[in-house]
Amino acid sequence: MAGFSAEELSLDDFLGGRVRLLQPRQGYRAGVDPVLLAAAVPARSGMRVLELGCGGGQALLCLAARVPGLALSGLELQANYADLARRNAALNAADLSVFEGDLSALPVDLRHQQFDHVIANPPYYRAGAHSPAQDAGRQIALGGDTPLELWFDAAARRLTHKGYLHMIQRADRLPEMLGACLGRLGSVEVLPLSPRVGRGAELVLLRARKGGRANFRLHAPLVLHEGARHTDDRESYVPEIRAVLREGAALPWPK
Amino acid sequence: MAGFSAEELSLDDFLGGRVRLLQPRQGYRAGVDPVLLAAAVPARSGMRVLELGCGGGQALLCLAARVPGLALSGLELQANYADLARRNAALNAADLSVFEGDLSALPVDLRHQQFDHVIANPPYYRAGAHSPAQDAGRQIALGGDTPLELWFDAAARRLTHKGYLHMIQRADRLPEMLGACLGRLGSVEVLPLSPRVGRGAELVLLRARKGGRANFRLHAPLVLHEGARHTDDRESYVPEIRAVLREGAALPWPK
Repeated sequence: MAGFSAEELSLDDFLGGRVRLLQPRQGYRAGVDPVLLAAAVPARSGMRVLELGCGGGQALLCLAARVPGLALSGLELQANYADLARRNAALNAADLSVFEGDLSALPVDLRHQQFDHVIANPPYYRAGAHSPAQDAGRQIALGGDTPLELWFDAAARRLTHKGYLHMIQRADRLPEMLGACLGRLGSVEVLPLSPRVGRGAELVLLRARKGGRANFRLHAPLVLHEGARHTDDRESYVPEIRAVLREGAALPWPK
Repeated sequence: MAGFSAEELSLDDFLGGRVRLLQPRQGYRAGVDPVLLAAAVPARSGMRVLELGCGGGQALLCLAARVPGLALSGLELQANYADLARRNAALNAADLSVFEGDLSALPVDLRHQQFDHVIANPPYYRAGAHSPAQDAGRQIALGGDTPLELWFDAAARRLTHKGYLHMIQRADRLPEMLGACLGRLGSVEVLPLSPRVGRGAELVLLRARKGGRANFRLHAPLVLHEGARHTDDRESYVPEIRAVLREGAALPWPK
């Protein structure tokens, strides 16, 4: 199968319409996570950015909408999602090279390149730890069986000296993430993402630097929603997060 | 040297006077950290509690003041601090057995015992990473050269099935702490301790369980001080922390 057919796809607005993305109606559909990931990356015009597991290109294309002049590359395991990322890049007039392949055996063209930034939003569920998804593509996107260590290893190999990895992932996998940084990346910082004030983190954003030597830092959580609990169906994001999601602002990373 | 002389010691109030502790005027003097550690432990009357590196007994004796009927044991490397812990136990009429010895080669009497709770407040500085302290005892207390992994290993060996370790430590050593839990302790929870709202964590309380299988949890930070910054010299602890420090209350651990 080369790609999704037109009727399998919906066209959705991101960043208040600054980015429009084709997404499978039944497969993996981006939530706010790739948007938050893209908003955390301090890339500057002219830099090279690689996303590992780029899916339909949501994070990369949100990043491109905020920072013009980036050279974007994406690695995607599934052919139909790689094809979708290429179509989404064209739709948004972005400079994106999509490589189809596996983290543990990168395509040769990618293996000869270095990047200022690597980003990743790896599948959230360990294989076998979740109920089988109806859709095979969604299943791989949600529960790929690649250990997180392989993501860090590929990222560290592809980063330039002092280049950054940003990853968004479930908070309960933080021990695995920190373990995978050892010997590969330094200056690790964790920004917990809490749904509401006083609640534990469900997700974390991790920043790490190749060749970094600074102490590990655990930042104060970034709280996503207003109020102590979800009271109704109205959008309740705090202003900083609303600015990220609706206006394409950068995510305020702690000093 | 068997112990500190009377003129080398001061007698200080803890928990609003519920605990009185002799401390060396020049050596290691307890701050709030052992008090917070003791307040986090959900021990019940009749349980056995071991502190690794008990110093002058501050944490154990604060715990004993809150939970009556505990069987307390402490391991201490330095003979004069072990002696001080015994004197402090007598002063507070607590059931405390102090063992003099090294984490990596526990005294035989301890090696044959199991505990419901192990607690530890390991030295905060890696050997060589700090300027030499004037006082040798303070230097060992602040900068012992025992890797954190040895603390976790000793704790895991001495815990009963489903027993808990609680540790207070600098937040920047969290990666090392989480790595040391692997294969030894599970159901790990981290409670970041932030000086003020919106500030990163300087310390963390870690809770882990022998044989625990729950997912890792990163809790919302416990903020120690009122206000966004330190404005004057008046005590500015939030009410929950003031209750811990001045009234011997339990620390509110997140559900």
